[in-house]
Amino acid sequence: MSAKWSVKTQLPVHYTVFESFDLFNPENNALLFDGQNSSQKSLRRVVVVDDYVERLHGERIRQYFQYYEIEYRLISLSVSEDNKSMDTVFQVIEELNAFEVSRRSEPVIAIGGGVLMDIVGLAANLFRRGIPYIRVPTTLLGVVDAAIGAKTAVNFQGHKNRIGTFYPPLAAILDTTLLQTLSDRQISNGIAEILKIALVKDAELFELLENYGAAILSSKCQNPEAVPIIRRSVQGMLEDLESNLWEEKLERLVDYGHTFCPTLELKAVPKLLHGEAVAVDMAISVMLAYQRSLVTYQEVERIYNFMRSVRLPLLHPICTPELLYAALQSTTKHRNGLQRFPLTVGIGAAQFFHDITYEEIKTAVKAIAQLEPNAAMQTSL
Amino acid sequence: MSAKWSVKTQLPVHYTVFESFDLFNPENNALLFDGQNSSQKSLRRVVVVDDYVERLHGERIRQYFQYYEIEYRLISLSVSEDNKSMDTVFQVIEELNAFEVSRRSEPVIAIGGGVLMDIVGLAANLFRRGIPYIRVPTTLLGVVDAAIGAKTAVNFQGHKNRIGTFYPPLAAILDTTLLQTLSDRQISNGIAEILKIALVKDAELFELLENYGAAILSSKCQNPEAVPIIRRSVQGMLEDLESNLWEEKLERLVDYGHTFCPTLELKAVPKLLHGEAVAVDMAISVMLAYQRSLVTYQEVERIYNFMRSVRLPLLHPICTPELLYAALQSTTKHRNGLQRFPLTVGIGAAQFFHDITYEEIKTAVKAIAQLEPNAAMQTSL
Ligand SMILES: NC(=O)c1ccc[n+]([C@@H]2O[C@H](COP(=O)([O-])OP(=O)(O)OC[C@H]3O[C@@H](n4cnc5c(N)ncnc54)[C@H](O)[C@@H]3O)[C@@H](O)[C@H]2O)c1
Ligand SMILES: NC(=O)c1ccc[n+]([C@@H]2O[C@H](COP(=O)([O-])OP(=O)(O)OC[C@H]3O[C@@H](n4cnc5c(N)ncnc54)[C@H](O)[C@@H]3O)[C@@H](O)[C@H]2O)c1
Repeated sequence: MSAKWSVKTQLPVHYTVFESFDLFNPENNALLFDGQNSSQKSLRRVVVVDDYVERLHGERIRQYFQYYEIEYRLISLSVSEDNKSMDTVFQVIEELNAFEVSRRSEPVIAIGGGVLMDIVGLAANLFRRGIPYIRVPTTLLGVVDAAIGAKTAVNFQGHKNRIGTFYPPLAAILDTTLLQTLSDRQISNGIAEILKIALVKDAELFELLENYGAAILSSKCQNPEAVPIIRRSVQGMLEDLESNLWEEKLERLVDYGHTFCPTLELKAVPKLLHGEAVAVDMAISVMLAYQRSLVTYQEVERIYNFMRSVRLPLLHPICTPELLYAALQSTTKHRNGLQRFPLTVGIGAAQFFHDITYEEIKTAVKAIAQLEPNAAMQTSL
Repeated sequence: MSAKWSVKTQLPVHYTVFESFDLFNPENNALLFDGQNSSQKSLRRVVVVDDYVERLHGERIRQYFQYYEIEYRLISLSVSEDNKSMDTVFQVIEELNAFEVSRRSEPVIAIGGGVLMDIVGLAANLFRRGIPYIRVPTTLLGVVDAAIGAKTAVNFQGHKNRIGTFYPPLAAILDTTLLQTLSDRQISNGIAEILKIALVKDAELFELLENYGAAILSSKCQNPEAVPIIRRSVQGMLEDLESNLWEEKLERLVDYGHTFCPTLELKAVPKLLHGEAVAVDMAISVMLAYQRSLVTYQEVERIYNFMRSVRLPLLHPICTPELLYAALQSTTKHRNGLQRFPLTVGIGAAQFFHDITYEEIKTAVKAIAQLEPNAAMQTSL
């Protein structure tokens, strides 16, 4: 007779995503959020800031913590995809260790783009098996995507995000006033992820984008419609995340535009930003949907016109059918052997397919190449 | 008006701990466990083995997977506390990457002691944000402790287990036949953790230990009483883990013997094994309990006599009251500012205390030093 035990339990997760504006103004105490109700606030913080953001706001951030008489350590990290690595995670962990951060009551604050937040999130997870942290996104992609989910990651030996964990923050604090210093390209990059949410689940959001997307770009998110549009996108994203935070279901609406995208990000020269690669992926997906009569040609045109209006690419010279099909196969592997390819059904809904063929991809690329000859491989025309 | 979202969800965790004997016998298919009911079994596995265990069992393990026509990769790792590091974790991740392990259906199998399992567990957690893994402990400490919980860890810059995660295995498979090649010292080391469970929650287990502990040691867990005793210890441990797998409650009965222990493990020369450090910690804790009239002197003697009978130390020359008090302060920090010091109340129950003083520790050490003059600092006598 041998014994057997079944260990069953669950990890309750609760985190808060909230808007708060002008975060580095001492009159706003949002940055001191610690999830506790007690009035006995801890007066120690490690703050990790993207060094570009530090140059813009470092002085105000320091004054903020001085104003509250917080014992703080501000770490300014120069990060990019090239050093989005475990070495940079170790750098953060060394600082957490040196500062002797408490295990529970002194959340680490990460202020920066997706790269910075992914690194700090992983460091917070690994240090003493996990301490709380707060995400303060300073890019639009960060606000609508990287800050509000549970994923952390770094690159490993040329593989994007190959090392990482699911480790939800204590809070994500969204301050759109921080976005006004972004380049146009970074704004477009973030709009791609908003468009994704619109296409798969929110037709009204798509209309808002059609009406105000260009203004979001030109005002760098400072137009009055930016906040409600971003809010709607965050809402849509969180609905999908909340029910599937650890990606137990591999069929995820929010994976729309993320099928070819990892390969495009890796291989495209000149480089594509994440949102740009998502955009190209979505443009191809829309054409595939049209070929299967899931969307009308008019809908294709609306989507493409919108993408052009916010300067998102529809294609990239690297997009041969061979490369795209290989990319699909690699993603299929990551989705445990089934394509689980999301295609839009009209605008604002989507379904999963497992039988997209090389021929379909070839036809789709050819069709887009004819619309966008400058972005196409010569041979695709 | 600013928006706020509250993300609430939970991660369901379910894993299996089961006994199975003679695991590398092809007639036993336990090692192919994948948590699925389907008859379509995946035929690929990465197997990571402690290199000492590989020398003992490598041939049989290879034959086992060949017998089942599994495409496997056996990685033999020479591990110890000195290379229980992220570098070794990366070595494992590289192999997982090269083998292109699937995200869901090809559990990595870790065969070895606590060090090997902690390393592989962390690698499995970090690779693509988590793939399933199975723990096959080959040390007694592994069977009763390291294999059956959710913790992974490596050392970092001289700090023990400073980097790690909570990442439960798919299964832990307990095979006591693997323990017969352990040294006496490794067996005693494991008995310390069984004694811990007995002291804090299971008086009957303590009696079993008194009766059969010496036989467990001399037979290397091959006496007929070994399995039921180990089973009872596992049962007691799992009860406490299941309700607190992520250590949200910092008051943990299973932390008994783990207050001074991290410092003792770090500083003692000649080195103490983990279980030995736990033993010294328990001996001091028992004396502290006696001084507070929580246990009788007769109980102290029963416990100490048992410890002597299985060759566990009661003291170590490094144990000055100064060092122990500093160790307590460091552990208090790790327990978020409160001592949460578990002391036994009689044998088989325990309570937490937050007010242990330097003077009490000094008195306790002095008392044990008089019983064990050889293990004491000269100055303590
Ligand atoms: N964890 C997730 O769920 C998730 C989701 C999406 C993307 N990501 C990751 O996020 C990364 C991309 O994030 P990103 O687009 O924010 O890139 P990023 O972090 O590299 O930031 C882009 C650039 O903008 C600069 N910058 C940041 N804030 C600024 C500001 N306020 N003003 C001016 N410049 C500013 C940065 O210094 C950087 O040069 C990728 O590595 C991706 O893998 C993670
Ligand atoms: N994850 C957890 O919950 C947890 C719990 C307790 C301890 N630990 C960790 O476990 C480690 C200690 O584990 P351990 O005591 O198993 O040490 P270990 O893994 O270092 O193994 C001890 C020695 O025994 C050898 N060995 C292993 N199996 C053998 C066998 N069948 N026959 C002969 N020799 C064998 C090993 O090569 C090694 O030299 C520590 O690093 C500790 O932090 C983890």
